[in-house]
Amino acid sequence: MSGELRCESLWYGADIVTMQDGKYSIIPDGAIAVRQDRIVWIGPAREAKHIKAGIHTPFKGGIVTPGLVDCHTHLVFGGDRSHEFEQRLNGVSYSEIAAQGGGIISTVNATRKATLEQLVSSAGWRLERLLAEGVTTVEIKSGYGLDRDSELRMLQAIRQLAHNYPVQVQSTCLAAHATPPEFKDDPDGWIAVICDELLPQVASEKLADAVDAFCEHLAFSPEQVARVFTAAQRLGLPVKLHAEQLSSLGGSRLAAQFNALSADHLEYATEADVAAMAASGTVAVLLPGAFYLLREKQVPPVELFRKYRVPMALASDANPGTSPALSLRLMLNMGCTLFGMTPEEALAGATIHGARALGLADSQGSLEVGKYADFVHWPLQRPAELVYWLGGQLPCQVIFRGEAIR
Amino acid sequence: MSGELRCESLWYGADIVTMQDGKYSIIPDGAIAVRQDRIVWIGPAREAKHIKAGIHTPFKGGIVTPGLVDCHTHLVFGGDRSHEFEQRLNGVSYSEIAAQGGGIISTVNATRKATLEQLVSSAGWRLERLLAEGVTTVEIKSGYGLDRDSELRMLQAIRQLAHNYPVQVQSTCLAAHATPPEFKDDPDGWIAVICDELLPQVASEKLADAVDAFCEHLAFSPEQVARVFTAAQRLGLPVKLHAEQLSSLGGSRLAAQFNALSADHLEYATEADVAAMAASGTVAVLLPGAFYLLREKQVPPVELFRKYRVPMALASDANPGTSPALSLRLMLNMGCTLFGMTPEEALAGATIHGARALGLADSQGSLEVGKYADFVHWPLQRPAELVYWLGGQLPCQVIFRGEAIR
Ligand SMILES: [Zn+2]
Ligand SMILES: [Zn+2]
Repeated sequence: MSGELRCESLWYGADIVTMQDGKYSIIPDGAIAVRQDRIVWIGPAREAKHIKAGIHTPFKGGIVTPGLVDCHTHLVFGGDRSHEFEQRLNGVSYSEIAAQGGGIISTVNATRKATLEQLVSSAGWRLERLLAEGVTTVEIKSGYGLDRDSELRMLQAIRQLAHNYPVQVQSTCLAAHATPPEFKDDPDGWIAVICDELLPQVASEKLADAVDAFCEHLAFSPEQVARVFTAAQRLGLPVKLHAEQLSSLGGSRLAAQFNALSADHLEYATEADVAAMAASGTVAVLLPGAFYLLREKQVPPVELFRKYRVPMALASDANPGTSPALSLRLMLNMGCTLFGMTPEEALAGATIHGARALGLADSQGSLEVGKYADFVHWPLQRPAELVYWLGGQLPCQVIFRGEAIR
Repeated sequence: MSGELRCESLWYGADIVTMQDGKYSIIPDGAIAVRQDRIVWIGPAREAKHIKAGIHTPFKGGIVTPGLVDCHTHLVFGGDRSHEFEQRLNGVSYSEIAAQGGGIISTVNATRKATLEQLVSSAGWRLERLLAEGVTTVEIKSGYGLDRDSELRMLQAIRQLAHNYPVQVQSTCLAAHATPPEFKDDPDGWIAVICDELLPQVASEKLADAVDAFCEHLAFSPEQVARVFTAAQRLGLPVKLHAEQLSSLGGSRLAAQFNALSADHLEYATEADVAAMAASGTVAVLLPGAFYLLREKQVPPVELFRKYRVPMALASDANPGTSPALSLRLMLNMGCTLFGMTPEEALAGATIHGARALGLADSQGSLEVGKYADFVHWPLQRPAELVYWLGGQLPCQVIFRGEAIR
C-alpha cells in the first residue's frame, strides 16, 4: 500500500508534550512510531492509519513527555553526610564540623577509601530514585577523588552505572572541584596534574564526555580554570563550569570564551555574563536544590536569561553536601517557586534544554522524528502537574530507546 | 516454659527508632513482638529468646521507625489547581485569577459538583502517594463543600478512604474554612448553619473525630470561631484551629481556652500564645509546605515552642491551593531547612507529636508495648537520612496493625 510505514511499535492514546522548540508543543491524542531505538513518526493518532507496527500500546489517556534529562549531578561519592546535616541543625558550626574532618573533605576521604564496586552500588541506589521519576539521561561528575587514581575510579564507576541501568549516562571529569589536601599550599600543582596527567589519560581511555571545574574564591580562579579548559580543548573534550554561585568572578564569561556547553549555578551572573553566554550558545544550568538547602537569597537572573534567549536548564545537582536531592521533578517545582520560572520553562529545563547542556539536543530532550525513543507516560491531565505536585512520586511508565523499562 | 511469651509475629534485625518521649530512643539491633494488631514486646533482639512467634521476619539491617502520622491534610477535593498555579507563574495576578473564578472558590465549585465516588477516587490517588512513604495515620478535613450536603459528602468520602486503604484516617469537619458564596454578606449565618444544623448531624452520624476552623481576617473572627468551638464541645467533639498563619489574631490562645488538640500554622504566634498552648497541652502543628510555596518570610517561633515545651508536629497540609504536597518526608526536610527544627524534632513531629495532635498518642506515634503495631522499615543507616534526602521516594516496607502491607 502506498505511503505505508512499517515500524516496531506504535504508542498512542495520550496527549504528547513534545517540548519542541522549548515549548510544550502538545499534540492532542497523539501517536509515536518507533523503529529500533528512534522515533520514526509522531503526530495526531487520527493521521497514523498508514503505520503498520508490530506492537500497539494504547495509553488510555494521560500525557507523554520526553524522558527527563538531569544534566548536573554528583551522584557518585563515598560515605554520606546526613550526620553532618544533623549536626548543623543542632547548632554545630561549619568551623567545628570542618575541625572534625567534616565538609567536602569527609566525602573525599570516604570516596578514596571506597572500591569501584562500592561506588557503583551506593550511586546506583541514588540513581534508581531519579529513574523512578522518568529520568532517561543523566550526567554524573567526578570530583571527590582529587587524586589521579580516585578520580579515574569515579569515572569508571560512572561508566559502569551506564552499563547497569537503562539510562544514558554522560560522564564529566570534575577533578578541578577542590584543592586536594596534598596540594593545600600548591593548588597550581594540582591544576598541573589535571592538565598534564589526568586529562590525557581520561581522554585516551574515553572515561569522560566533558570537563568541568569549580570557579569560586574557595576553589579555583578564572586563570586556573582557563588552564584546565585549554588542556581539555586540546584533547577534544567540551567544557562546562560551576560559576557565579557565591560571588561574581566572571566564570561564566570565561566559560563562554571556551564555548562551554553550560555554565552552572549562576546566582551572581551579571548582564555581561549573560550576553556572553548568549553569544557562545552556552546553556544556563540552574540548581535550586543547593539554593534551597543553603537558604540563599540571591536568585539567578532569570529575566536576563529570557531577555538574551539563553536556554535555562534545571538539574538536581545531587550531591552529599549542598543538595542531597533524589528527585528532578522536585527541582522543577523549586525552579518555579524559588526562581520564578514558568512550568513550561521548568519542563524545558529538564528535557530539551537539559539535553542541550550536555550537547545532546540533536538526539534527545524533545519528541521529534529522528530522536531517541525516550519518553514517559504520566496519568496526569496537563504538564504543569509535573511541576505543581510537591514531592511524592508520580506514577509513570518509562520508555527508554523504544523499550518499556518500568 | 517459664517466662515464655507467645505471639503471632516477631520482627528483628534492624535498629529500632522508637521515638519514645519524642526522642529517637534507638534500640540497636532490636526486636518487636506483635499479637493481633498490637506491640506486646519490644527490646534488644538478644533479649528476645523467650518469645515464641508464629512468623519470624528478619530485616537484615536498616532502621525501623513508627508509622508516620500526617496530622493535617485537605486531601479530599474536587478539580485541580495546577492551571492556576501555572497562570500565577506566568504573571497573572491573584485578582485576575479570582475574577476568572479561581482560588478556593474554584475548588468549592468542583467539590460541590463531584460525586462521592469521584471524591474518593481522586483523593485516593493522592493518599497512595503519602502511604508509599510510610504514612499509617492521616487526618483529612472537609471544608471545600461549604454547604451542608457537600460538607457531609466530603466527610463520607473521608470515611470511605479509611475503608479502602490500610491506614487509620481521622476525619475533621472544617466547615468553617471560608464563607460560602451564598453567605457572602452574612458569614454569621453560615456559622449558625454549622452550629445548629451541620455539626449536630455530623456528630449523630459519627462522621468526624474533631472540628476545625480557619481564624484569619480573610476567614473567621475569634468570636465566630468560639461559637463553632462551643457547639463542638457541646457535642463532645474535640477542636483544633488554623491560627496565626498570616497575622496575629489570638486564635491560638482561643484554641488553648477550648483545650484544642492543636493549633496549626502559627507563623505569627506570640509568646503569650505559646504559653497558653503549653498550659492547655495544645500541640503546635507546623506546615512548611504552604510557607515554602507562598514564599513567606515569617517563620513560626520554634524557639518559643522549645522554651515552653509545646510539642511540635509537622504535616503536609496537602491541599490544592497553597500546598499540593504528596510527601510527608519532604515536609521533614522543609521543617528543618526552613524552620530550623532538628531532624529529631522533625521526625517526632511526623510520629509521636503528630499522633498527639490527633489525640492518638496513647495508641500510636511511637513504638512501645501496648501501642498499635504500625511501623516502617527503611534500608537506611540512621534516622536523620529520612530528613536529609531531598525528594525522591525512599524504599520502605510498611507494617500496619501487624501486617506487612507493602
Ligand atoms: Zn555541582
Ligand atoms: Zn490547612
